[in-house]
Amino acid sequence: MRLMRIGASGQERPVVRTDEEHYVDVSDVFEDFNEAFFADDGLAKLRALVDDRGGRLTRFAGERIGPPIARPHQILCIGLNYRDHAAEAGHAVPSEPVLFTKAPNTLVGPCDHVRAPRGSSKLDWEVELGVVIGKRTSYLDSIDDAHDAIAGYVLVNDVSERGFQMDRGGQWSKGKSAETFNPAGPWLVTPDEIPDVRNLDMWLDVNNTRRQRGSTSRMVFDPCHIVHHLSQFMVLEPGDLINTGTPAGVGMGFTPPIWLQPGDVMELGMTHLGEQRQTVLSPR
Amino acid sequence: MRLMRIGASGQERPVVRTDEEHYVDVSDVFEDFNEAFFADDGLAKLRALVDDRGGRLTRFAGERIGPPIARPHQILCIGLNYRDHAAEAGHAVPSEPVLFTKAPNTLVGPCDHVRAPRGSSKLDWEVELGVVIGKRTSYLDSIDDAHDAIAGYVLVNDVSERGFQMDRGGQWSKGKSAETFNPAGPWLVTPDEIPDVRNLDMWLDVNNTRRQRGSTSRMVFDPCHIVHHLSQFMVLEPGDLINTGTPAGVGMGFTPPIWLQPGDVMELGMTHLGEQRQTVLSPR
Repeated sequence: MRLMRIGASGQERPVVRTDEEHYVDVSDVFEDFNEAFFADDGLAKLRALVDDRGGRLTRFAGERIGPPIARPHQILCIGLNYRDHAAEAGHAVPSEPVLFTKAPNTLVGPCDHVRAPRGSSKLDWEVELGVVIGKRTSYLDSIDDAHDAIAGYVLVNDVSERGFQMDRGGQWSKGKSAETFNPAGPWLVTPDEIPDVRNLDMWLDVNNTRRQRGSTSRMVFDPCHIVHHLSQFMVLEPGDLINTGTPAGVGMGFTPPIWLQPGDVMELGMTHLGEQRQTVLSPR
Repeated sequence: MRLMRIGASGQERPVVRTDEEHYVDVSDVFEDFNEAFFADDGLAKLRALVDDRGGRLTRFAGERIGPPIARPHQILCIGLNYRDHAAEAGHAVPSEPVLFTKAPNTLVGPCDHVRAPRGSSKLDWEVELGVVIGKRTSYLDSIDDAHDAIAGYVLVNDVSERGFQMDRGGQWSKGKSAETFNPAGPWLVTPDEIPDVRNLDMWLDVNNTRRQRGSTSRMVFDPCHIVHHLSQFMVLEPGDLINTGTPAGVGMGFTPPIWLQPGDVMELGMTHLGEQRQTVLSPR
């Protein structure tokens, strides 16, 4: 299944995409794709409902596409999870997943604008595979057990302000948490529709120039490893989002660095996960 | 006003404490002291309701006391915000607030148990002043403007696993986010009841030995400074909790260090903010 949320920001309706042009509306049965939905075995119920309504398709009519999940309890992020990106960032490849967090209210739709925060001078992009947690998860016994904890996958842009991240106190969250800093979507795809999550190509262009090319085959820690690992340190809640790290080609990695400017356009995509497009706005 | 939530975990009722023995029940009008409550001018409505019900007091009957706010959008934490603690931790006094985060689902009541996470060997305590945000807050123009953004204050214990915090990837969140790691309460007190938030004494005992003594008068950055600062980097949501840092006397600061063991009892308190007591449990 491909779960989407369409409509104005804050008023999105949950739907299930069936093809490029059609969806099944499920908003009369499910309030939202939120923590309660995932906790209450929502994916299984949704599948049954969509099967029932197989013929009742609606045509997409140009509605805004929101993020495919409601604001989560946490957005957890894994840093330096591709060897080539760790190298360009001047770090060693980590021996275990590096965790930082992003404010949950950074979540926006895949084609919403990205707004530079006030005082920003080092705005940067990061195409990433996002993992959505499907149930309350703690102390997984094995990496294999993580399969059952994953609701699905989503394309994300882990937008970053490198000055705020690196030069404002040592921890990274200050540079990761400005409004609009987490475009996600267009859809959440369930694991059964992805033959091998460890072999997805991804790319990101800025103003039509390709800046990032990568593949999840080159991740240091794969999604199940990450979920198992994090579950040893905290309780993951249904609907939590994990950004799993970005490959090489971020603006910080160029010599001299390339920073996003107002008016710049980011386009990005990943196998099975669709495409995004954001225009950078000036600070409020 | 002193806001409290009483009842079993996950089923707390919102009440307003009037004295040591009595409260006004407001659970028929307000669902919870959560994000929607604060966003919807809940404090003003609550004050009017309590005035109306002045005589309708209920006697506390030994109910469990929960955290005085529902699970927030974020728990933000300020590190190294007392000179003496920065020194004992081996850090310089920071030139601006150091930010890290804690999983919101760590929030528990003031006398709930604190459970050591699996693999823990360096479990530590931190008595702190907590600040609760009262409305959506972004880009405050001045430090003084932060007064209007603060709903109130709460006593917190920012429980920490130092091995996870320091030795597991560089960022601190891994050592701050285990279940039960954020006792809060017993009450949220509104700012009008605190003559000077920059002059509150705090203390923490472990097994009846005093380990921390401090005063908010020795904070490097006071609550308004912190709220103004954070508002430049992210949008603060109503009900967000900010732990403002701990004074000297944490277990890490002793030579040799003192780490919490199962069965140990932490007791802590702060002027106007009440007292807490937690027993340390073995890992699940």
